[in-house]
Amino acid sequence: MMYSLNRTLQTFNWRVIFNIIGHVLMIEGCLLLFPLIVDLIYSQNVWSAYLKTIVICLVIGFPLSRMKEKHKSYFAKDGFVAVGLSWAILSFFGGLPFFFTQEIPSLVDCFFETVSGFTTTGSSILTDVEALSQASLLWRSFTHWVGGMGVLVFILAIIPRSNDRTMHIMRAEAPGPVIGKLVPRLKDSAAILYKIYFVLTIIMILFLLAGGMPLFDSLCTAFGTAGTGGFSIKNVGMAYYNSVYLEMVVTFFMLLFGINFNLFYFLLIKNVKAVWKNEELRTYLIIVAFSILMIMCNIVHLYDNSWFEAFRYASFQVASIISTTGFSSTDFNLWPQFSKMVLLLLMIIGACAGSTAGGIKVSRFLILLKKTKLDIQKLLHPQKVEAITMDQKIVDEQVVHQILSYFFCFMLILGSILLIVSLDDFDLETTLSACFTCIGNVGPGLGMAGPLSNFSMFSDLSKIVLSFAMLIGRLEIYPIIIFIVPLFATRKTKRHRD
Amino acid sequence: MMYSLNRTLQTFNWRVIFNIIGHVLMIEGCLLLFPLIVDLIYSQNVWSAYLKTIVICLVIGFPLSRMKEKHKSYFAKDGFVAVGLSWAILSFFGGLPFFFTQEIPSLVDCFFETVSGFTTTGSSILTDVEALSQASLLWRSFTHWVGGMGVLVFILAIIPRSNDRTMHIMRAEAPGPVIGKLVPRLKDSAAILYKIYFVLTIIMILFLLAGGMPLFDSLCTAFGTAGTGGFSIKNVGMAYYNSVYLEMVVTFFMLLFGINFNLFYFLLIKNVKAVWKNEELRTYLIIVAFSILMIMCNIVHLYDNSWFEAFRYASFQVASIISTTGFSSTDFNLWPQFSKMVLLLLMIIGACAGSTAGGIKVSRFLILLKKTKLDIQKLLHPQKVEAITMDQKIVDEQVVHQILSYFFCFMLILGSILLIVSLDDFDLETTLSACFTCIGNVGPGLGMAGPLSNFSMFSDLSKIVLSFAMLIGRLEIYPIIIFIVPLFATRKTKRHRD
Repeated sequence: MMYSLNRTLQTFNWRVIFNIIGHVLMIEGCLLLFPLIVDLIYSQNVWSAYLKTIVICLVIGFPLSRMKEKHKSYFAKDGFVAVGLSWAILSFFGGLPFFFTQEIPSLVDCFFETVSGFTTTGSSILTDVEALSQASLLWRSFTHWVGGMGVLVFILAIIPRSNDRTMHIMRAEAPGPVIGKLVPRLKDSAAILYKIYFVLTIIMILFLLAGGMPLFDSLCTAFGTAGTGGFSIKNVGMAYYNSVYLEMVVTFFMLLFGINFNLFYFLLIKNVKAVWKNEELRTYLIIVAFSILMIMCNIVHLYDNSWFEAFRYASFQVASIISTTGFSSTDFNLWPQFSKMVLLLLMIIGACAGSTAGGIKVSRFLILLKKTKLDIQKLLHPQKVEAITMDQKIVDEQVVHQILSYFFCFMLILGSILLIVSLDDFDLETTLSACFTCIGNVGPGLGMAGPLSNFSMFSDLSKIVLSFAMLIGRLEIYPIIIFIVPLFATRKTKRHRD
Repeated sequence: MMYSLNRTLQTFNWRVIFNIIGHVLMIEGCLLLFPLIVDLIYSQNVWSAYLKTIVICLVIGFPLSRMKEKHKSYFAKDGFVAVGLSWAILSFFGGLPFFFTQEIPSLVDCFFETVSGFTTTGSSILTDVEALSQASLLWRSFTHWVGGMGVLVFILAIIPRSNDRTMHIMRAEAPGPVIGKLVPRLKDSAAILYKIYFVLTIIMILFLLAGGMPLFDSLCTAFGTAGTGGFSIKNVGMAYYNSVYLEMVVTFFMLLFGINFNLFYFLLIKNVKAVWKNEELRTYLIIVAFSILMIMCNIVHLYDNSWFEAFRYASFQVASIISTTGFSSTDFNLWPQFSKMVLLLLMIIGACAGSTAGGIKVSRFLILLKKTKLDIQKLLHPQKVEAITMDQKIVDEQVVHQILSYFFCFMLILGSILLIVSLDDFDLETTLSACFTCIGNVGPGLGMAGPLSNFSMFSDLSKIVLSFAMLIGRLEIYPIIIFIVPLFATRKTKRHRD
């Protein structure tokens, strides 16, 4: 086994991987200046914890970033490992300030909280969020914003060195239009998407300020929304503000950040037709509308038969869950089972590909649904030759099969995680929803992991497993399992040729 | 929409379908003689209900069976529809005696109970099983035995008329060795399998009698085990007999009936090597052993730290659930969450293909696991050409993709059923386990649908939906959806050529 593991590890281009990790750590050091400055403003005396972390990041990151590449050959697998490791390391070091300030005394909890931040999940182990310093509150929410950008950051970090294969895998992994197609040079594409992300965040902050939300709260809420994260800085979540206007603003922007960012670019270059004809967007909106309607009918009796109130809470929660943000404006744990089931299923579906959201993604589901339909039609009319189309283009069979494999892999991992987390012996609702919400990068679960509760009661084992679930969900599985699987590969499988 | 539906319906060869249904009804009429005779022995005066049903079956079945085929062309889809309709009709008429005797006053409940019988599920709506007449108890268990043979019956019914396409689909549907491969003539193969089924049942009855179980109970228990059904004739299930010997006998035979029947034939012709090398069997036994071990460790504290007792209950329950039988020897609803999670996952996995069990089947899972492993290896070593092998033979890529589609389809249907059943507003454990147990053809669920409870509290809507879940699970999805989908197909999809 050791031999096989060694061989596998040797095949990676470690110098390139360390080089990337070094850069990532240095970037994190810079990002940590933000909460440091915030603490200097609020004088809550936690700046030293942030300074310590910055020094650690730079001291470790700088030498790594200086590593020279011995050979230029660089494969998809190296990119995957670099991405997976980067996120784990980013989360570990990003969690240190909470440990240094003793705001979160356990290192496992610090890791969980920061993974939850960077993966834009928003599940928290904090029982009293409001006890945190302003700097830490901001850093928590800021990790969402950075994490939301993250997928793009890493694509940027990998692509300049990539060969065709990397692109091929990325294209396969992200069905529907991908960034590469916007403008000829990929770097320019990413820059455009960043600008959109930045501008939309600013607009949202302005809208929140207009509703009377304090600047600090607006910043944190906008960061959490843009990254589809969902950390709240209040113990009761959005209910704290009790403002229909603010809820509507957040609802709107949550839905917005669940949309493929390419579509915003298409809007910018006035290609309205491409947006209008986008099947994923239409399906996404149909699912949202249908879910809101179903939940409204199911909960209206809880709100004195007020359809307005039912719409208010149903729309906020549906937008929050399908966009995998995870804010809450009410304790949906108290809703009937049907509404909770709708939310559970939305957690798994997630929003559009190419957005900051988690989950399996609407486009993948759409393609799988079309595949199922096609299979049935083939049984009914075997003589017909049909293909799966998306946005009037034929979807390559290879892509369909990869998505099918992805779906099985997702469920397989979900099953394994469920098994481990169930060792904590909480009820099925708590266990199941915690796993769903973590792998879907949503945030709150149901039962004891509900929107007004937190994840502090889980064992360290469960917290670590759920942390990996968040990473697996965020990085769409492969970067993480590519790293875990060799550990269990006891022998080389036989080689066959067709 | 009506136009499209009409067109779809017209493409079926209805005369052949009705002809098959007619024969099926007449066979059912004959089968009903068995409980009729039992009632004459026990003189509980319910024979007239059975006689009425027999007359109805013959009166409707005879003219249908006389229908002549206008044209000989007969496709896979006709077979699917004939199978799907036959099972539904079989269950409807098979439930009539319960209605006529008023032992089950609601027609929906009668349908549910009989579907549960024929699909070898074993979920019951009866609150007091022991109140039933002996004839009805026997008929209930007998439906399991007939249902377990059923898949073979229908293959027989279809195959004589089939063309290559039908065989092709069936082969794709049943991974691993299929019946067609035993001996050159398919009819002979089926006859061999029937004999094995019959002889194994007899042996089991003898073993039960040797343990002191009354003849009537032995018959019912053996029927329920052979069909992997699981209807109990006692309210507390196997716990009634409180006999370690009887539990061990049932455990052994439950596991046995979860094994691919071809392997018994291989044993008969002394091809021990084929059995030994069978990967599905090995995986099945590994899963069983591993599950028993995990549950034992998890529950031993509940049985005064007696490892023997822990083994006794864990092995019985694991065998019962993975073979999708569903007998219970203890209230596993009281076990810790981890053990319940193991059982929930086993419900979905099911036993071996080519057995009387339900679930997704071990061989399908094995192929999907191999596929996942291959995908990861491809990422690590893109230059290698590998194929998935099963029992030293390469598995066709087409088959792998069909299984992947099957898995998605299974989950999709499960999600839809969950949504509808959750309307009843029971807790998640009850809802989820009821859907799992029905689509997996297991029997008992958890929570309010646990082994000492029943399904009577569900609404009629849920009962009908769960009945279809059982049929879908038993018939491996396609025969049912092929029938439901045209109802929703509002327009003809465009035709594409690659």
